[in-house]
Amino acid sequence: MSENTLRHNAKRVLRAQRIETPSWAYGNSGTRFKVFAKAGVPRTPEEKIDDAACVHEFTGVAPSLALHIPWDQVDDYPALARYAESRGIRLGAINPNVFQDNEYRLGSICHPDSAIRAKAVDHLLECVEIGSQTGSGVLSVWLADGTNYLGQDDIRARQDRLAEGLAKVYAAMPEGMRLLLEYKFFEPHFYTMDVPDWGTAFAHCLRLGERAQVLVDTGHHAPGTNIEFLVAVLLREQRLGGFHFNSRNYADDDLMVGAADPFQLFRILHEIHGAGGLAPEAGIEFMLDQCHNLEPSVPALIRSILNVQEATAKALLVDRDALRDAQRDGDVLGAHAVVMDAFSTDVRPLLAEVRQDQGLDPDPLGAFYRSGYQEHIEAERIGGGLGWGA
Amino acid sequence: MSENTLRHNAKRVLRAQRIETPSWAYGNSGTRFKVFAKAGVPRTPEEKIDDAACVHEFTGVAPSLALHIPWDQVDDYPALARYAESRGIRLGAINPNVFQDNEYRLGSICHPDSAIRAKAVDHLLECVEIGSQTGSGVLSVWLADGTNYLGQDDIRARQDRLAEGLAKVYAAMPEGMRLLLEYKFFEPHFYTMDVPDWGTAFAHCLRLGERAQVLVDTGHHAPGTNIEFLVAVLLREQRLGGFHFNSRNYADDDLMVGAADPFQLFRILHEIHGAGGLAPEAGIEFMLDQCHNLEPSVPALIRSILNVQEATAKALLVDRDALRDAQRDGDVLGAHAVVMDAFSTDVRPLLAEVRQDQGLDPDPLGAFYRSGYQEHIEAERIGGGLGWGA
Amino acid sequence: MSENTLRHNAKRVLRAQRIETPSWAYGNSGTRFKVFAKAGVPRTPEEKIDDAACVHEFTGVAPSLALHIPWDQVDDYPALARYAESRGIRLGAINPNVFQDNEYRLGSICHPDSAIRAKAVDHLLECVEIGSQTGSGVLSVWLADGTNYLGQDDIRARQDRLAEGLAKVYAAMPEGMRLLLEYKFFEPHFYTMDVPDWGTAFAHCLRLGERAQVLVDTGHHAPGTNIEFLVAVLLREQRLGGFHFNSRNYADDDLMVGAADPFQLFRILHEIHGAGGLAPEAGIEFMLDQCHNLEPSVPALIRSILNVQEATAKALLVDRDALRDAQRDGDVLGAHAVVMDAFSTDVRPLLAEVRQDQGLDPDPLGAFYRSGYQEHIEAERIGGGLGWGA
Amino acid sequence: MSENTLRHNAKRVLRAQRIETPSWAYGNSGTRFKVFAKAGVPRTPEEKIDDAACVHEFTGVAPSLALHIPWDQVDDYPALARYAESRGIRLGAINPNVFQDNEYRLGSICHPDSAIRAKAVDHLLECVEIGSQTGSGVLSVWLADGTNYLGQDDIRARQDRLAEGLAKVYAAMPEGMRLLLEYKFFEPHFYTMDVPDWGTAFAHCLRLGERAQVLVDTGHHAPGTNIEFLVAVLLREQRLGGFHFNSRNYADDDLMVGAADPFQLFRILHEIHGAGGLAPEAGIEFMLDQCHNLEPSVPALIRSILNVQEATAKALLVDRDALRDAQRDGDVLGAHAVVMDAFSTDVRPLLAEVRQDQGLDPDPLGAFYRSGYQEHIEAERIGGGLGWGA
Repeated sequence: MSENTLRHNAKRVLRAQRIETPSWAYGNSGTRFKVFAKAGVPRTPEEKIDDAACVHEFTGVAPSLALHIPWDQVDDYPALARYAESRGIRLGAINPNVFQDNEYRLGSICHPDSAIRAKAVDHLLECVEIGSQTGSGVLSVWLADGTNYLGQDDIRARQDRLAEGLAKVYAAMPEGMRLLLEYKFFEPHFYTMDVPDWGTAFAHCLRLGERAQVLVDTGHHAPGTNIEFLVAVLLREQRLGGFHFNSRNYADDDLMVGAADPFQLFRILHEIHGAGGLAPEAGIEFMLDQCHNLEPSVPALIRSILNVQEATAKALLVDRDALRDAQRDGDVLGAHAVVMDAFSTDVRPLLAEVRQDQGLDPDPLGAFYRSGYQEHIEAERIGGGLGWGA
Repeated sequence: MSENTLRHNAKRVLRAQRIETPSWAYGNSGTRFKVFAKAGVPRTPEEKIDDAACVHEFTGVAPSLALHIPWDQVDDYPALARYAESRGIRLGAINPNVFQDNEYRLGSICHPDSAIRAKAVDHLLECVEIGSQTGSGVLSVWLADGTNYLGQDDIRARQDRLAEGLAKVYAAMPEGMRLLLEYKFFEPHFYTMDVPDWGTAFAHCLRLGERAQVLVDTGHHAPGTNIEFLVAVLLREQRLGGFHFNSRNYADDDLMVGAADPFQLFRILHEIHGAGGLAPEAGIEFMLDQCHNLEPSVPALIRSILNVQEATAKALLVDRDALRDAQRDGDVLGAHAVVMDAFSTDVRPLLAEVRQDQGLDPDPLGAFYRSGYQEHIEAERIGGGLGWGA
Repeated sequence: MSENTLRHNAKRVLRAQRIETPSWAYGNSGTRFKVFAKAGVPRTPEEKIDDAACVHEFTGVAPSLALHIPWDQVDDYPALARYAESRGIRLGAINPNVFQDNEYRLGSICHPDSAIRAKAVDHLLECVEIGSQTGSGVLSVWLADGTNYLGQDDIRARQDRLAEGLAKVYAAMPEGMRLLLEYKFFEPHFYTMDVPDWGTAFAHCLRLGERAQVLVDTGHHAPGTNIEFLVAVLLREQRLGGFHFNSRNYADDDLMVGAADPFQLFRILHEIHGAGGLAPEAGIEFMLDQCHNLEPSVPALIRSILNVQEATAKALLVDRDALRDAQRDGDVLGAHAVVMDAFSTDVRPLLAEVRQDQGLDPDPLGAFYRSGYQEHIEAERIGGGLGWGA
Repeated sequence: MSENTLRHNAKRVLRAQRIETPSWAYGNSGTRFKVFAKAGVPRTPEEKIDDAACVHEFTGVAPSLALHIPWDQVDDYPALARYAESRGIRLGAINPNVFQDNEYRLGSICHPDSAIRAKAVDHLLECVEIGSQTGSGVLSVWLADGTNYLGQDDIRARQDRLAEGLAKVYAAMPEGMRLLLEYKFFEPHFYTMDVPDWGTAFAHCLRLGERAQVLVDTGHHAPGTNIEFLVAVLLREQRLGGFHFNSRNYADDDLMVGAADPFQLFRILHEIHGAGGLAPEAGIEFMLDQCHNLEPSVPALIRSILNVQEATAKALLVDRDALRDAQRDGDVLGAHAVVMDAFSTDVRPLLAEVRQDQGLDPDPLGAFYRSGYQEHIEAERIGGGLGWGA
């Protein structure tokens, strides 16, 4: 394929790409040791929308905001949706929280006590309802359930409870809604997690139905896991619902996506593109899920979006005709070189062109810094979010 | 449950437990750096049968021997089966080898070249036929297929070829045969393995049919993987076919099972027992798959069998009534203590009783050493197996 | 060595063993997701002393309490020491905290700003002074310093600042005080930690002087690290100062020591004993450092102490004469069997004897539960510790 | 710093950079499962020199070849050195092999038997002598010593033997020779390695003397280890002797450097450059140590050298003035951006210029393919290296 054709196609796809930001990334976050308060953090869901709108304004590809319930609880969700619309964005995936009430100490829908399970299911059903009101097509389910000690609870009994709870939620979802089931290797539990890996999430989705799909958080794997491989397998099985992008060196570090391992991000995008997953009709959700413990959130999210865009652009520049030929011939070095050539390319000029074509500043981060937005929110927002997720 | 009842039940189950040894563990093995030759290694499949019979003689629970084709290739398999029978054991799982011919450099049934794929499928079909002749009910499939470099081959295309190849083999299996699909995190390939995790094996088994099940090799996981959890999930999904037991500290170290982590082995057996998997009708195959690089094979295999028996005995001593009560009450420390009490128990006296009940020496390893078998084979077998698997 | 001699020696050593509990383990703890409040947690340093005294009362081997400053800050430390003495225990290691002030966002004594570094050093010097007042011989230094992103700060410049800060503290220590430098693989920073491994801690201790030694927290290593090996190396270099015992499956899980991997705990104790490190004059500090997120603290700490005692007892039962002989002969299976025999032994009866010899209840946990202490503190202590470390 | 200045300096440093190739990488290699024979592999040390000369011809930066004894054993080393010189290269580091004789089953200089230890020391001394004859200034010591099972041998006793053996070798080295001590996390032993980490190697080097330094093989670490951090620490301690470059995803995969993680390679070079380690007088040895299991060796080595050059070029383009300013100001995002800007740059044009300035083809790999060298050796060399290292 000629480089011109590749670049032309790449620009077309890059213009259509959409990346969702999460409301919680605009607030404070931290570790169990300390949440450092940041200046200018939003105090209300509306202020989170303002920040998300700012990110979209400079990047042009982030037109939706994922909500976290109850952190973003309001009385009138349709009104919140209209507020978002007024700022040029829309409300995205609904993320239930069944891990912060004291009753959830031993789990939520996997809890040994049926009353606690019922409470957790009710919250999930409430989130289905909120999603209906906000027009969100995605219920994004992460369960903090697990155990810390051998024997603490019965692994299979918990799986049974899990299946039962998810079935109730799935049954209540309106037709246009999908349930994305997230898995996590460990934390906040350290012996078992009830959905620790993609296999377990996949098995549950198969039993639930076609609108249940696996959500891949790039920070939720055992060391050394080849994430692009399982992405490819899930794509092949048509059970990849989307991503929570972030990056990590050790555990669920929740660093800015592309910061810890830009090559991995490229490899993941390369698999997605290879399977047609960048097409809007593929329905793959690209969402960020990060913790900005040390750095200001709005520019960190802009930077993260640029990182996803750069990885996407590189994946789009892989000469797939040449790659297929080399693979067919068993030319190990040649095939590898085709992909690495794309990775070695500096795609920032290409992305600048894409932005200029859309009337955006070619340098979103520079434009943000020059805009005075950060100074504005730091001056305006006094007394904002003191705790994680608050 | 009273301790007496627990002990009584334990002895009954321990008497019925069966553990298969693998023909290749009787030969030399090593690392890529060196295969150290051992004295007395068998030179023929018949001598491997002799060694397996010796292991069974002293342990009473190892009445079958897994074959590796072509390492154990013979002209007349029924004759080999009769020879085994004459030594008091039978031939077990058939393990094809599609990784040692030069053509398999880039894979076997996932190879980009259809001619190589056909050759590999033919070998698997030959193994089905051998299994029919030897009366083996298990075809144990491990594929060394994978890639070393990004781009080297197409992940999804390889999955398609894999599915196609497995389907041909599955279709050819006689009714009483099961296909156990093994997965492996890495090695001999270092970028992708085509079946790297239980989820991928599970997905393929689902598509193949009910007689396709997952084989868990305890050394084939990412660091930190909770193996007993996935064992429990596979048991719940009725897709756990069996085990290749060994132990590891780092990679696929293939050390004697129970040597590197006896607590893990206990936890796995605890889950198996909890799901009824120790009952013969559950059809879970307990097989060893180890490399005795430094130590003599026969006593190492006896030791490994004792280790599995001890872990099983401890799992059988868990007071499951007390455990269920503590779990129901959310008593974290109490539930944990119930399981740990069983683990802390010295079960060697109990196993000595089990053996004496069966007319065996209560100390199988001591009895072996006293028997002179090792000296005998070291004197008799000159010129044995010079290479790994040879 | 005869079994009787081994048991006799073991009892002698077990009677003399001392294990320090940490004040912070008596309070609430949790993960970044949630700190679940527990009933009966202490509200003051004095109440932590009460709990520690209770642990000592039932175990007989936990006569000291490590302090965390400022969590245990009081106006009058000598008075606090007298209070401890009145309850039958003493104050142990002083643990400075230079990670919870907002100024420490980018580090403490490694911070790029010299004013913050000075503040952190001042706090460490204050802890030296507190240690002098409480009669503590140990300053236990863990620094949360590190960076989250490539480029965030200069690795070597931070090492220079670290060396400079530690040197100031070391110079201020009275003669009988030791500085134990703890390392940690990651958390709360996720790109670099300024003291990530034993090698870095060791290098700094060498430059500081003989009274600077390495502190091994059993949860602070890369996956797969052989902890007993580095313990042996540090013992050989005479730079092992002590332990923060806990256990882990994934990261710094801070589970009860011996719960996640009792075999590892045994292997560590086996190395310590082999090097004479159980002798009081060896000066190895055995301290617990755990987070009881789900379970009540006092019985969890008792359980942890029992776990250390059991691992110690097993290590003491290794027949080292037989082991040395087998090692000398290159008898791999024989040498391994000698150590495993000790591990397989149920040492609970032996420990019950040790306790009865000392006038203690042979079942410390049962005795604690029967004592009513837990009910007492749950009834009395209303409004206790709401946050982690509070 | 202006971009022009950066580029100018970069070109100067890149022209002076030297990367050593290893004789064993030109032969066959593989895993314990299979060594696939490659066409055209060298049959003699002289043919390895020919291949190394070819790599140097096209890259201009690989003027030396590391030897492996006894794989490269010859009767007349000065003659071999003259042959190398006649081909435009020189002989580099001497790599002893004390792991392939049957006697080394339980170790070499750490073996429990003093006769085996003496044999191993003799081999190391022979390598010192060979180094004197070839004019090699580097003795590169990797010991495969370790144990597979708990109890197999005494960890501290092995350390004593190790120290003793190394001291004998160090004492015998001529003044201009350095001993580089390599460490390895695991393999070929799976319970302990006698030099498993940089800390252990560092401790031994300190006791040996100033000409003992640590050798970092980039594939020899625990999962998640921050290699650039320990590189920085070793540089600061002036104990970094050099590198064995390769890349890995899982274990010691020995893939082409820069293939598995080009970002890590960049980060390592960034630290080296920051500490002045790219200057020839710093004495850091840049050596490749790879296994080309699937791909032809000569182009794979050329590719690897290009990868090191690209990582070096990017590290040289980091604007260190801007970086220092951002770090001083605590500007996390800004400092990170400075380094990432360099990484995002496509440095291939710059390297093409460097090559053209030196009269080389700007595309070394293309030039190699066009040269017909591969076809030549495949036609000429019949019956070459059938085994690993042969």
